[in-house]
Amino acid sequence: MLQLVVGPRIRKSPYFDRSLAAGATHFSIYNQTYLPLGYGDPIGEYWNLVERVTLWDVAAERQVEITGPDASAFVQYLTGRNLSKFVVGQCKYAPMCDYEGRLVNDPIITKLADDRYWLSRADGDLLRWARAIAGARGFDIGCVDPDTGPLAIQGPQADDLAAAAFGEWVRDIRFFRFEEARVGAGIPVIVARSGWSKQGGFEVYLLDRTRAHELWDLIVESGAAFDMGFGGPNPIERIESNLLSCGVDNDDRANPFEVRLGGYIDLEMDADFVGRDALAEIVARRVERELMGVYLEGDEADLTAPWPAFAGSEPVGSVRAAARSPRLDRTIGLALLGVAHAGVGTELRVETEAGPRAATVTDLPFIP
Amino acid sequence: MLQLVVGPRIRKSPYFDRSLAAGATHFSIYNQTYLPLGYGDPIGEYWNLVERVTLWDVAAERQVEITGPDASAFVQYLTGRNLSKFVVGQCKYAPMCDYEGRLVNDPIITKLADDRYWLSRADGDLLRWARAIAGARGFDIGCVDPDTGPLAIQGPQADDLAAAAFGEWVRDIRFFRFEEARVGAGIPVIVARSGWSKQGGFEVYLLDRTRAHELWDLIVESGAAFDMGFGGPNPIERIESNLLSCGVDNDDRANPFEVRLGGYIDLEMDADFVGRDALAEIVARRVERELMGVYLEGDEADLTAPWPAFAGSEPVGSVRAAARSPRLDRTIGLALLGVAHAGVGTELRVETEAGPRAATVTDLPFIP
Repeated sequence: MLQLVVGPRIRKSPYFDRSLAAGATHFSIYNQTYLPLGYGDPIGEYWNLVERVTLWDVAAERQVEITGPDASAFVQYLTGRNLSKFVVGQCKYAPMCDYEGRLVNDPIITKLADDRYWLSRADGDLLRWARAIAGARGFDIGCVDPDTGPLAIQGPQADDLAAAAFGEWVRDIRFFRFEEARVGAGIPVIVARSGWSKQGGFEVYLLDRTRAHELWDLIVESGAAFDMGFGGPNPIERIESNLLSCGVDNDDRANPFEVRLGGYIDLEMDADFVGRDALAEIVARRVERELMGVYLEGDEADLTAPWPAFAGSEPVGSVRAAARSPRLDRTIGLALLGVAHAGVGTELRVETEAGPRAATVTDLPFIP
Repeated sequence: MLQLVVGPRIRKSPYFDRSLAAGATHFSIYNQTYLPLGYGDPIGEYWNLVERVTLWDVAAERQVEITGPDASAFVQYLTGRNLSKFVVGQCKYAPMCDYEGRLVNDPIITKLADDRYWLSRADGDLLRWARAIAGARGFDIGCVDPDTGPLAIQGPQADDLAAAAFGEWVRDIRFFRFEEARVGAGIPVIVARSGWSKQGGFEVYLLDRTRAHELWDLIVESGAAFDMGFGGPNPIERIESNLLSCGVDNDDRANPFEVRLGGYIDLEMDADFVGRDALAEIVARRVERELMGVYLEGDEADLTAPWPAFAGSEPVGSVRAAARSPRLDRTIGLALLGVAHAGVGTELRVETEAGPRAATVTDLPFIP
C-alpha cells in the first residue's frame, strides 16, 4: 500500500476536510490537487452512481479562466471545435491539440460572457500551456486559475437531489447549459448540467471558496433523503460509457481522430487553430490507429500500465484501461489498436500484469 | 492516512518495484509519475543523507529532450540564463519564465551535443509548454520525453559508493559535468555530478529502461559496504540548504528575482528569451517580495499549505515550507515576504495549522 504524502506542493480541494470526514480513503493527484477517488467500496460506489446518486469532490478539475478583448479569438485558436455558434450560458466539449496535432487536453469550455471563458481541464498544465501560446502569438488576454472548486452530483436521482438542495429551477437547466445562482444561505455558485459520467447530473462551481463547507453540507443534508453516496470519478462506468480519460486512453503521440474525437474537429472552418495543418495532413494521409472496446477473458482488470496487445506475435497496440463491469458481468477494456486489427470481432492476445489473456475487439460504447 | 491509487494515468518509475521491495512507504506524484519520498523513518533518512550516503529513485524528474537544427537557439529562447559559453558535457541550472516573467520551471539543462539537450524538469508540464512555444514561434526542433529514469546517489560518501559501483573514474567528474559510460555488465548510463541536495553526489540517467533493475541492484550491492540508506528528495535538508522547490517556494505570480534566482537572468545578453521584456520591467519598477528564512517558535513544522504571515495585523506574505532541523535543533521555514518586512531580524506572526507562532526573519541558507 502506498501512503500519499500531504505536503505544500500539492493543493487541497476546499472540500478536502469534508471528504476525509465522509470517509474518503483512496486518492490520486490531478492537476497538482488531491483528488479523492474512493471510499473503500468500489462496487458499492459504482451502484450508487448508476442506480442512485453520488457526490464527488472534483475540485481537482481546475479551471483556466480566459478574459479580455481577444478572449473569444484566443479560445477558438486553442481548439479545432468550431465555436462560431457558442452562446453565453453554454458549455462545449473541446479537444485541444498541439502544433503537431497530438491531443493535449480535452476541457469543457464554459462561456460565461463574450469575453470570459472557463476551460475545465483534464490532468495537465493547461494554464501554462495556454499562457505560452497567448504570449508567443500576441493575444491580448488574461489567463488565471479562478479556484472555483467544482463538486459533481451524478446519477439518475441527481435532479431530485439538486432540486431539493438548490431549488426546482435546476430541473430546467438543459444539457451542457449552466445557471449562475445563490443557493442555501446565499452561497454563490454556477450550476451546469454536465459531469464525467453518462448517468446524468450536475457540476457545481463554487464562486466563494470560504463557503465550501457550507455548500458541501447543504448537498449532504439534502442527500440523506435520496440514499446519496460519496464517490469519485468512476473508472468502471466511464469505460462502460466510453468517456475519454485524457492521458490514459491516448498516448503522447495520439491525435483526436485516433480516439474518436474527430467529429469535434472542423478542418473546414475559417478560423485558424493550433495544430490545424498537422491535423489536415493526418486526415489526408489516413488515420493509423483507433480506440476500440475489447472483451477480455477472465476477470483480471488490475491495469496499472498499458497492456501490450498482439495479433499472433505481432504487436498491434495496447489496452489503455480495463475494468470488471458489474452490469455486463464481463471484463472490458479500451484499446488503442492499429486499424488493420481494430475490426469488431478481431481476436487478440493481451499481456496483462497477471499473464496473457484472450481479447475480442468490440465497438464502443459498451453500454449506450 | 491517504492511500494512493495506482492506476494507468500515472507512470511508474523503472525502479518502482525495487523501491517497494526496499521498503518505500510514502509517495507523491511528480510529473505524472510516482515518486517515492520516504521509507518510514524521516529523521534516519535525513542523517543518512547528511552523514553517509543515500539512494533515491527520482525517475519522476523527467527529461525533455530538445534536438534538431534550432535546438541551441530554442533552448536559449526558453531561459534568461546566458548559455553562450555552454559546452557539451556540462549541466546548467536554468530558470524558465513565461511571457509575463513568472517562474514556470527551473530545470537543469544537460548539453549532450550541439544539437541535443535534456531539460531535467521540476514538477509541471514542461514538455508540452516547450512544444507550444516551439510551434507558435516556428522553431525547427524535436521535443520528446526520452524516458531516462534518473537515480540519485547523494551524501558525503557518494563518491566512494559511486566509485565502487561504477569505477574510480567517477571521482574525476567535476561539479555539473557528466560522462556517458557503461557500468556493471555494460549498462548504458550518463553519470552527472549533480542532485537536489547540498551533500554532494551524482545523478545517474539510465539509457536503456529494460536494465533498470540491474542498475539499481549494482548500486545497492556496492552500497552495503557504505551503510547506504534509501530515501527520496529530502524536505528538511533542502530547506536548510535553500534549494528552491519550484511550485512550493514560489506562488503562481512569483518572478525569479523574488526567489533569489535573479543572478541567473541576463537582461544584457543579445539573445531574446521568453519573458525578457516583462522581467526588464519588473527590475525597472522594483522587486516587491523576497524569499527569506524564518526561525519559528516551537516545533510545529507540519505545513500542508502556505502559512499566512503578519506584521501586527498586516498580511505581509507567507511561509511556503517548514521543517524541524535536526542539525540546528530549531524550526525553520522559507517565507515569501513583502520587501518592507523581509529584513533580517524582523519579527512576524505566522498562522500555522496548529495556531499562531512567532517568527524571526533570517538570511539564507540556514546551513551553508
